[in-house]
Amino acid sequence: MKERVKNIFNIIEAKLDAIILKNSVLPYIDDNFFYVTGLENGIFEGSIAVLYPNGDVDLVVPELEAESASKSKLNIHVYKNKEEMNKIIKKSFSSLKRLGLNYNGISHKDFGKLKDMFTKSSFIDVSEELMKTRLVKDQLELKLIKEACKISDTVMKKIPEMLKEGMYEYEIAAEIDYHMQRLGAQKPAFETISSFDKNTAEPHYSHGTTRLKNGNFALFDFGACFRKYNSDITRTFVFGRADKQQREMYETVLEAQNIGFDAIKTGVKTREVHKLVSSYIDSTKFKGRFIHSTGHSLGLAVHDGARFGPDDKIELKENMVFTVEPGVYISGFGGVRIEDDIRVKKEGIEFLTNSSRDLLEI
Amino acid sequence: MKERVKNIFNIIEAKLDAIILKNSVLPYIDDNFFYVTGLENGIFEGSIAVLYPNGDVDLVVPELEAESASKSKLNIHVYKNKEEMNKIIKKSFSSLKRLGLNYNGISHKDFGKLKDMFTKSSFIDVSEELMKTRLVKDQLELKLIKEACKISDTVMKKIPEMLKEGMYEYEIAAEIDYHMQRLGAQKPAFETISSFDKNTAEPHYSHGTTRLKNGNFALFDFGACFRKYNSDITRTFVFGRADKQQREMYETVLEAQNIGFDAIKTGVKTREVHKLVSSYIDSTKFKGRFIHSTGHSLGLAVHDGARFGPDDKIELKENMVFTVEPGVYISGFGGVRIEDDIRVKKEGIEFLTNSSRDLLEI
Repeated sequence: MKERVKNIFNIIEAKLDAIILKNSVLPYIDDNFFYVTGLENGIFEGSIAVLYPNGDVDLVVPELEAESASKSKLNIHVYKNKEEMNKIIKKSFSSLKRLGLNYNGISHKDFGKLKDMFTKSSFIDVSEELMKTRLVKDQLELKLIKEACKISDTVMKKIPEMLKEGMYEYEIAAEIDYHMQRLGAQKPAFETISSFDKNTAEPHYSHGTTRLKNGNFALFDFGACFRKYNSDITRTFVFGRADKQQREMYETVLEAQNIGFDAIKTGVKTREVHKLVSSYIDSTKFKGRFIHSTGHSLGLAVHDGARFGPDDKIELKENMVFTVEPGVYISGFGGVRIEDDIRVKKEGIEFLTNSSRDLLEI
Repeated sequence: MKERVKNIFNIIEAKLDAIILKNSVLPYIDDNFFYVTGLENGIFEGSIAVLYPNGDVDLVVPELEAESASKSKLNIHVYKNKEEMNKIIKKSFSSLKRLGLNYNGISHKDFGKLKDMFTKSSFIDVSEELMKTRLVKDQLELKLIKEACKISDTVMKKIPEMLKEGMYEYEIAAEIDYHMQRLGAQKPAFETISSFDKNTAEPHYSHGTTRLKNGNFALFDFGACFRKYNSDITRTFVFGRADKQQREMYETVLEAQNIGFDAIKTGVKTREVHKLVSSYIDSTKFKGRFIHSTGHSLGLAVHDGARFGPDDKIELKENMVFTVEPGVYISGFGGVRIEDDIRVKKEGIEFLTNSSRDLLEI
């Protein structure tokens, strides 16, 4: 993990004494805390990581997390209450003067608290540098993401045989999550989306009590979280025979996804990928029906910092990992999304998910 | 939901034109957004809720979330990109001068962005008032929490028959989550803890590949998330016959929990409850082995704002919902925690979880 910390400092222009990561309470936990410690268990509310340019990391954790923290082999300070925490900060860290903070990962309230603790220090925002370092995955990260992708591919393959007329959306979601966890996923990467019929037109719908009927779209968007690293895959099936509109939607999205894949290689800007994909959809009868970005970087977080969106201009580098997930959505009718995970290579991409992308009529 | 918004303004001393809730990207989503809208689907990254003293709420959401947002029947502004969002803010909200913000639920970066958008407005922190309003649950909230508790009770009852020698921790976690979701839980309330043997000494351990052996502690800490509201229950079993140490640990924790239950009623301060419970454990041979707070408020968030901790001085009111969860932990040996969810009543408590608390030897 030392390399990761050094990599962060390497791209920061300012000369810093340290970077401080401060977790608040759930859900406001900075996942960079796990990136720099490699810890896989524990929640670490109220915990602090102090990162040094030489790659060293000090941890300040509540007693509750001491056992979990000890697995990191880092230098650990344990506190029982706020008073003790303040004492530790004063004694061990108040001499640090030039501090980097993750402005994206710290609440405004906690920022104020740090200001009060480090009265003689100056802060600068290192959120961009943390994000950019994390975008390029190291070998361990790629291994874990690939494992997560493998689990979701295996489960995606099982779905067609699970689907029976009259089933509830939530039943399939339960099966998907169960199979992922039986295959070694720590948990689902996010709330599994299992939507039927016109609910498929709502991109962030999760699942409910709609029953599967003949002729419905059935959309499944899920991922595995494997030792903290995530996958994210979507397939849209037709339960029965696809009608003309459904087939056209599917073919449009599939072609859009292929255009996305073809556009990705090192040196390209993220928004250029989105522009090609969205322009294609807008050149079809489904103009205006693609209502989100083409994809997002994937890793320790499901939304890991960058996007293929209209406002995003990150330059693609080798070993970045992204989803490619165009969709078209027609309110009251339904939606199609096809999503895969890829690794950016010098000339093109490596597919990390490998489920069939053909239109499947079940 | 109008009542909820009015209740928030009622306890704010300053005269405000509006409160602004601003979501960042996952996991930095302010759950107050869901509290004031009642929405049960959608993620709402980058979305804004503007709350008015009369209870009205305006939403500003990306196109992606428009379909989900429409279920709220609120006044919705939809944007396609950052430029459009800025235009909406300028046109519809820049006349608002005195604004409340949730300093606990907004990243420092987004705070800066709001400062840039509302150049002529002043901000005050309303995080305390949001938290305090949410602590007292309304009838709908109590109904949903009770449903979540019922699901976790039902699953807890099934666990003893699931346990077989040699099973992996993660297998039981998968079964627990599956059964909760089959019973209607939207998802687990948090990453289910299923720990055996000495792993039970790590309070925030989740689950791994340790196998169940005769004589082990087996600790299960999980909850159901039902229509966004959560339950949270823990039981510690002995797989086989309990030895003397295990039995003493269990009896100490059980007695500590009873002391907690007895201490809770309206008017009592949260830290007084913790003091009674922790003093009791510190008066036994397990002095110093209780290493976390006695419980936390529970609702839309699993950690819903208040705690029975050494630094917490919220006054208990009717219809607050808390966990009561003392534990003792011995590194290298194991831990016991017993956790139930209760509603604060004028004179005492109502149990929301009702699983047996007797020491179970399986």
